[in-house]
Amino acid sequence: MKNAVRIVVAAAVVVSALPAMAQFQKPEDAVKYRQASFTVMAAHFGRIGAMVQGKVPFDAKAAQDNAALVETMSKLPWAGFGADTESVASKAKPEIWKEKAKFDQSGEKLLVAATALNTAAKSGNLDTIKKAFGDTAATCKACHDDFRAK
Amino acid sequence: MKNAVRIVVAAAVVVSALPAMAQFQKPEDAVKYRQASFTVMAAHFGRIGAMVQGKVPFDAKAAQDNAALVETMSKLPWAGFGADTESVASKAKPEIWKEKAKFDQSGEKLLVAATALNTAAKSGNLDTIKKAFGDTAATCKACHDDFRAK
Repeated sequence: MKNAVRIVVAAAVVVSALPAMAQFQKPEDAVKYRQASFTVMAAHFGRIGAMVQGKVPFDAKAAQDNAALVETMSKLPWAGFGADTESVASKAKPEIWKEKAKFDQSGEKLLVAATALNTAAKSGNLDTIKKAFGDTAATCKACHDDFRAK
Repeated sequence: MKNAVRIVVAAAVVVSALPAMAQFQKPEDAVKYRQASFTVMAAHFGRIGAMVQGKVPFDAKAAQDNAALVETMSKLPWAGFGADTESVASKAKPEIWKEKAKFDQSGEKLLVAATALNTAAKSGNLDTIKKAFGDTAATCKACHDDFRAK
């Protein structure tokens, strides 16, 4: 439990620290950047999904490599949701900026889940990975339901 | 010198190993993925550039974080240049597939340069970073000149 709290706190620090790292010339660049981060994350997450769903044979090394990338990428997109990006056309719902605390919390949940997925991948155990994959997918879905237009 | 050879060999192994990790449903997905990888890489590379060019104050920690991301991202796009993507509209020139060995070598050069940039960033010395940034930018430019349409 202590560990879980520590991870949440660490994730919160990462999420709030990142915007300082990110500087975009114009709001459109921020939108392009966040979309690109999600694209790369989804590609690698999907490769773990293919193994979890038995569509491709389980490869422990590939699962580890992909999970490490998912964790890395999970930290990035949030810097691209600055207030000045609200008016740029995208699937982002206005709720992102209206309910900023809730949105930030959703991002933190992904970070926690992606970190756990990366740890699970290192175990080399498919069942452990399956569970962590499902938990991560649930955080994606919950955030998309609330904050992404269809 | 031995180290340099080792890095080149390691980079070559990474580049050739990655396509096995990457599976795309359709060629368009591969193109979207490689473009997204370049977008994320360029954003973080640009942040180091801003420090190197004195546009923003030097921040050793930010330089390190960004350089680590540049190295990670430098390994990714190559998997998205499969032969089946040649016909998808993009800035990729046909030379990529006609001169595959040369193109692969360009990718390996970037990996070597990005790894050196990451090492340089860890030194915390702006002049060291400046040099490695310039070397990396040169590999970007050389490859764009040869293989990317204006």
